[in-house]
Amino acid sequence: MQFSSALLEALLAELTRLPGVGRKSAQRIAFHLLRSPEADSKRLAAAIVDLKANVHDCSICGNVTETDPCVLCTDPRRESTTLCVVEQPMDVLALERTGEFKGRYHVLKGALSPVDGIGPDQLRLRELLNRVDNGGFTEVIVATNPTAQGEATALYIARLLQPKQGVKVTRIARGVPMGSDLEFSDQVTLARALSGRKEI
Amino acid sequence: MQFSSALLEALLAELTRLPGVGRKSAQRIAFHLLRSPEADSKRLAAAIVDLKANVHDCSICGNVTETDPCVLCTDPRRESTTLCVVEQPMDVLALERTGEFKGRYHVLKGALSPVDGIGPDQLRLRELLNRVDNGGFTEVIVATNPTAQGEATALYIARLLQPKQGVKVTRIARGVPMGSDLEFSDQVTLARALSGRKEI
Repeated sequence: MQFSSALLEALLAELTRLPGVGRKSAQRIAFHLLRSPEADSKRLAAAIVDLKANVHDCSICGNVTETDPCVLCTDPRRESTTLCVVEQPMDVLALERTGEFKGRYHVLKGALSPVDGIGPDQLRLRELLNRVDNGGFTEVIVATNPTAQGEATALYIARLLQPKQGVKVTRIARGVPMGSDLEFSDQVTLARALSGRKEI
Repeated sequence: MQFSSALLEALLAELTRLPGVGRKSAQRIAFHLLRSPEADSKRLAAAIVDLKANVHDCSICGNVTETDPCVLCTDPRRESTTLCVVEQPMDVLALERTGEFKGRYHVLKGALSPVDGIGPDQLRLRELLNRVDNGGFTEVIVATNPTAQGEATALYIARLLQPKQGVKVTRIARGVPMGSDLEFSDQVTLARALSGRKEI
């Protein structure tokens, strides 16, 4: 398909490489940029380049950061006795948004998935063991996703940390999500909610 | 919400200003860029800046272009007797993809919509009249959207061009879309398909 502008085609090609952006979304974005002030395009382009140039992984927790170690690892107001293990940096963001957790994080960078060739060596598990051995943590909260891979990873971590004295390994609760209807909950979630019931 | 990277927050803020990109999509795009090679980010950023710096409206048809007039207006292989009127540059793209139309285009840059303050003066109707007066067109195909605004605009154009001698004004057919099921067609579309029936 030849469009009247090669530069427009070039941008569409770049945009459609992004996750969740199809041909139609790319067109809408491109025409939106054409209608917006030039400063908007420049700011967006600069933000893209800056991100890649300056943001990298924290050497301690594996979260994305501009400083090393990251602010979450160095903040003296956070408790250093609780460690929350998550799959991805996005999960740190989600947990931080709750405002409920004030400990430290550890990003695995994935979950066990043999079919995708992801075994224990592909995850940041050695780093986790090192931190638990030397970090003075009393509780490790495993907050991997409630998926087959996330559950397998949680089990693996629990076994891995079992020999460690004075470290409790816990798993986030799985049950019916807040604001949902019981009738629309799938049976696995509902069974989990029942078996995980608590006295009120 | 404080995330561990201000640059990441800055990019998320820019991305969520784009149409169809919410907070979640912006996060997915940002983390995708972090995982991809730096060259990808640079190419995307350059494409965004290049587009805004070099792509503008064709002074004849109003389509987006790097050259003025655009290739669709200057291509000698296209017939200069048929003019297709559309609302937006994206519509030119959609029609070109069919490969069925070989005439010239005219982009209105919108459709009549009094509630949004868009009257005849906000559209490229004066330019359309000039082209019809001087361009030697024998047919004007009105291909505005089959919406209330698009239909009103089509009617307005038909009345506007009525006094012109030797110029036929036509409207693209509206009916049931190809590949669809009659039972799922809305009643307005189905009524239109019935009234627009043709002998086979």
